[in-house]
Amino acid sequence: MARNYYSTHELDRCDPRRGDARWVAAWLADPATRVAVVWRDKVLAAASDEPAAHLVGPAALAGRVDPGALTLLGTCAGVAYFGLDASELADPLAELGLGPAARLEDLRKLGPVAPPFEASLLAYARAMAYWHRRHRFCGLCGSPTSSARAGHVRVCSSDSCGVEHFPRTDPAVIVLVTHGDACLLARQARWPPGRYSVLAGFVEPGEELEAAVAREVFEEAGVVVEDVRYHSSQPWPFPASLMVGFTARALERTLDTSGDELDDARWMTRDEVRAAVDAGELLLSPVDSISRRLVDEWLEG
Amino acid sequence: MARNYYSTHELDRCDPRRGDARWVAAWLADPATRVAVVWRDKVLAAASDEPAAHLVGPAALAGRVDPGALTLLGTCAGVAYFGLDASELADPLAELGLGPAARLEDLRKLGPVAPPFEASLLAYARAMAYWHRRHRFCGLCGSPTSSARAGHVRVCSSDSCGVEHFPRTDPAVIVLVTHGDACLLARQARWPPGRYSVLAGFVEPGEELEAAVAREVFEEAGVVVEDVRYHSSQPWPFPASLMVGFTARALERTLDTSGDELDDARWMTRDEVRAAVDAGELLLSPVDSISRRLVDEWLEG
Repeated sequence: MARNYYSTHELDRCDPRRGDARWVAAWLADPATRVAVVWRDKVLAAASDEPAAHLVGPAALAGRVDPGALTLLGTCAGVAYFGLDASELADPLAELGLGPAARLEDLRKLGPVAPPFEASLLAYARAMAYWHRRHRFCGLCGSPTSSARAGHVRVCSSDSCGVEHFPRTDPAVIVLVTHGDACLLARQARWPPGRYSVLAGFVEPGEELEAAVAREVFEEAGVVVEDVRYHSSQPWPFPASLMVGFTARALERTLDTSGDELDDARWMTRDEVRAAVDAGELLLSPVDSISRRLVDEWLEG
Repeated sequence: MARNYYSTHELDRCDPRRGDARWVAAWLADPATRVAVVWRDKVLAAASDEPAAHLVGPAALAGRVDPGALTLLGTCAGVAYFGLDASELADPLAELGLGPAARLEDLRKLGPVAPPFEASLLAYARAMAYWHRRHRFCGLCGSPTSSARAGHVRVCSSDSCGVEHFPRTDPAVIVLVTHGDACLLARQARWPPGRYSVLAGFVEPGEELEAAVAREVFEEAGVVVEDVRYHSSQPWPFPASLMVGFTARALERTLDTSGDELDDARWMTRDEVRAAVDAGELLLSPVDSISRRLVDEWLEG
């Protein structure tokens, strides 16, 4: 049982079987197989009152999509799941014949309320779709690439290059910084009014996770941290991150937000956070984020 | 002080200043500035008896390399460090006028014995060089890209695309699996005879670190794990990984290496490992790896 949203331990990713084209084709001929559809920044959701993914049977897609556009996500309880990137269609609901039962939805809205296993399938499908879209050409030689191994490799089409490209995931750190009874909350200018979160940033080449934590907190807020401790991790396909959560202690309750990244930062005690949330003045991150979990666990004590 | 090889907390990466071309140019005009040179899979080392990087002053490179081929690594104690990818040269020692003081070396050989700060600079420079080489063309549209922000962004040259590409780092998990007084060691067929290590594998999109640990151990060795705990992390530029180290406990001392990945796997007690190492029958991973640190700490513990 995974602890964070968008993760699952239930799906068998079937890595060793991905290259077995007959095995993959057999799943695509199985009417029980289900396909998670991604369209640009959105995913296919059920149009019902109950929040859920709208997973499509392979027969409904036959003749409408190239089987090579499907990515095998894995199997669970005897059912195979695929992801489909339908981003090149102008009107995917009509062109895929999906009728009134489906709608396109932002996964950040659906994820927190959908069944967790479905949310994790959609997250995985969304991440793979983004990767395919961003790697249509070879970075080494500029030639077109094509999907292979059930969507888990893109192969350069040039005979003189032919390099294999693998899915990309960008590691990022996210950290709850505390000092005594207060924690550090900050906001970016583009966020909704009142929204505050813990600090986060991408890990760079040549950098360990703990160094990235210390660098980001100092760069963004001018705070020096120690005792950087791992908390948990989460796939975060918005668009392509792996969030690695930490806690850390500040040496001093300093603040310097003169850099470009933050609109504001504050040291707030638990009572101050609770009172500001109750008064509607402070909006914490949505429940699907590690940020929210870090803050909630700190509030609980 | 970083705990693992190739990491450093001493370097200020100067992220906020990378876009300031005048500031970057001033460092390149400073004779104290030092450049770490990468050539294909090798790095520039001193030709002396003492293992060390051969860092080059900017004057030595003037007129020989395009300043746009340099990547700002950061500053430390008033000195700026850059990385240079010289892979396009046929004979970098001659073409860069480096004379007999320098030689080309494998970082896996130099890293364990060089001063740690120098090893971390070379690792960072090697990772950035590899990224630049693999992203000369835009994955979205196939147009050439060019380096920007002191080497930390590659920008697509197409007016209709123009997307910015950021450095890529591939998260991977590495895990010491124990059961009672034994740990799981395994080898790949391409390794030197007798070399055994703990298990490792890349994290996939839509996957949390702990799920990647469980998946890799089961896929490779048929072992089910619980109690997956974070240990430490390490930049691993061979060619582009971030290694995230874990420990885990096996439910049972089972083994199934019928998959493609492993040549052999064994459960070994501390006494068995020590005896096999002493007899020259077991070769543990080099000291620069998390794998070795995990095994050494288990042997001590």
